Amino acid sequence: MANVYVVVMAGGSGTRFWPASRMSRPKQLLPLGGGTESLLAATVARVAELVPAERTLVVTANVLREATRRELPSLPEENLLFEPAPRNTAPCIGWATRVILARDPDALVAVLPSDQHVADPAGLRRTMKAALAVAEVRELATIGIQPSRPDTGFGYIETGAPISGVERAREVSRFVEKPDLARAKEYLASGKYLWNSGMFFFRARAMDEAIRTHLPELARGLDGMGADDVARVFPGLPSISIDYGVVERIEAGRVGVVPGDFGWSDVGSWESAWELASKDAAGNALPEGAIAVDARNNLVQSRKQVALVGVDDLVVVETDDAILVLPRSRAQDVRAVVDALKSKGRTDLL
Amino acid sequence: MANVYVVVMAGGSGTRFWPASRMSRPKQLLPLGGGTESLLAATVARVAELVPAERTLVVTANVLREATRRELPSLPEENLLFEPAPRNTAPCIGWATRVILARDPDALVAVLPSDQHVADPAGLRRTMKAALAVAEVRELATIGIQPSRPDTGFGYIETGAPISGVERAREVSRFVEKPDLARAKEYLASGKYLWNSGMFFFRARAMDEAIRTHLPELARGLDGMGADDVARVFPGLPSISIDYGVVERIEAGRVGVVPGDFGWSDVGSWESAWELASKDAAGNALPEGAIAVDARNNLVQSRKQVALVGVDDLVVVETDDAILVLPRSRAQDVRAVVDALKSKGRTDLL
Repeated sequence: MANVYVVVMAGGSGTRFWPASRMSRPKQLLPLGGGTESLLAATVARVAELVPAERTLVVTANVLREATRRELPSLPEENLLFEPAPRNTAPCIGWATRVILARDPDALVAVLPSDQHVADPAGLRRTMKAALAVAEVRELATIGIQPSRPDTGFGYIETGAPISGVERAREVSRFVEKPDLARAKEYLASGKYLWNSGMFFFRARAMDEAIRTHLPELARGLDGMGADDVARVFPGLPSISIDYGVVERIEAGRVGVVPGDFGWSDVGSWESAWELASKDAAGNALPEGAIAVDARNNLVQSRKQVALVGVDDLVVVETDDAILVLPRSRAQDVRAVVDALKSKGRTDLL
Repeated sequence: MANVYVVVMAGGSGTRFWPASRMSRPKQLLPLGGGTESLLAATVARVAELVPAERTLVVTANVLREATRRELPSLPEENLLFEPAPRNTAPCIGWATRVILARDPDALVAVLPSDQHVADPAGLRRTMKAALAVAEVRELATIGIQPSRPDTGFGYIETGAPISGVERAREVSRFVEKPDLARAKEYLASGKYLWNSGMFFFRARAMDEAIRTHLPELARGLDGMGADDVARVFPGLPSISIDYGVVERIEAGRVGVVPGDFGWSDVGSWESAWELASKDAAGNALPEGAIAVDARNNLVQSRKQVALVGVDDLVVVETDDAILVLPRSRAQDVRAVVDALKSKGRTDLL
């Protein structure tokens, strides 16, 4: 098998973990997986057995340069790529692919999001190996997560014919955008659909050709971007996702998917963070030394002495400059708070 | 009428407003009455129309010396009495009475707790005038609060015969300890009972004699306590309340009570603090700039950006080193938190 490179996409920003997450401290830099490690550090650590640090690249935003370095002290400096401006995932993957091609024209590449949680890392690695095997015989491979509920928050993958030679691997019939609940239930019942994990596997050369075919403007941009003029060229690249720009445009049958079942979570909200957190017998995930009296199933993040009395199912998050209190069931509504702060011009709090 | 002196008892400590209240910052120093003024400062300000600063004394704990001075910048230094150790209310009032007698042997004295709220200060002052008039013709007078509910958290005063010459004033038949609910309902229904406000009115000379009669050990201790040896003598005085040690021992008929109805609150818990606080249309008492989405009837104290989503009837209090979250209906259970901190040896947080 060719040398495998890992590309971790760590440039994302988001608002779903406000007030813990900020422009300068997005989700992937937070320890939301139940331990003290950030999601990003855990992502890199999970694949270290499969791919050495020399072949692990992380693409992140320029503004997250120092924070990302601190999270990944063992990664070689030349394996950190800093985007001068956010341009979505296609330019990110296109650039990383060029960097890898320059080092190893025969490389196989695994692209992983940096903000997911995996309960069974060995299971992930086994599934990645299968997906890499598919990538050797197809143009692209992905991992689809075995759905456990009719979730409307994910894109779905419809599976087709088996791919011979790789256990459980199938061709992708089509990618489907986030469905409504009725459709999500149909998908779940059919047994033919998987959740789109956002992980991609390909020969570097195949991806580079796919970008040239489907996103020629991006390919030309990358052609003109040397190591010294990223700051000048990158911001002008077309902003488009790899899913929409490339993956969904590749001919059906040339993309494979391997189903995975390794305790995957996209850590989508404070509710997910509570699910993943270490909890006491009453279901509370609290800071060391917290006092809880008649309190159940709460998530509290604070560096202070916390005391809860008679409250259930709450999320309480305190940072240096803000406090959020909401029921776990309303975790999605953090968005409303962020919108209110935006409309008040309080960008200092975002 | 003789010169009136006010004695504000401000040495109390308590746990019901943890984490805002601490050993070094007890309830009377907190702005719990709905504005930005501490209960102590508001108490002194309320009676300023009745009694000038020169005749207003504040007795507090030595450990609260600086904090109390900051609250009362206009009070003459010689009117601040600092107890070297807490000895309950009888030594406090006994000492203040001696200090006043030395200045004015004919003085009338009004003793007020420092940690109550009054919505109608003019009403309080009218009632105080009546109580002072009673103090001129009886050994002691008090103000009884017209009960609005069968509260089991207060002592009650059974009223007896009218006192001629002072409108609405009556003799006290007896003082009753905090009753159970059944008894509190009886008291309320009878129309004969008032809540014990803890305010007392007397001629300085009469109180001094009453202490000599009922607490001779205290009187002897005060005899031997010059201005220079408070630190040595005061801690050895008997620790006893003025209620139990003196007031309840005075012969029936020699104590009078004036009913008062001036929006009185003893500010007994975070629930009371919410009741007194300025609230928005949704019943929330929140810091400036707080964001509340689908949130009603909450009390939040914090210097940070506060965001509430989908929570009702909560108390959230954040200080430099602690956060408390509990439903308003559980406000009394702050005690459980304080007990837990004590048993963990966390006196630094008390």
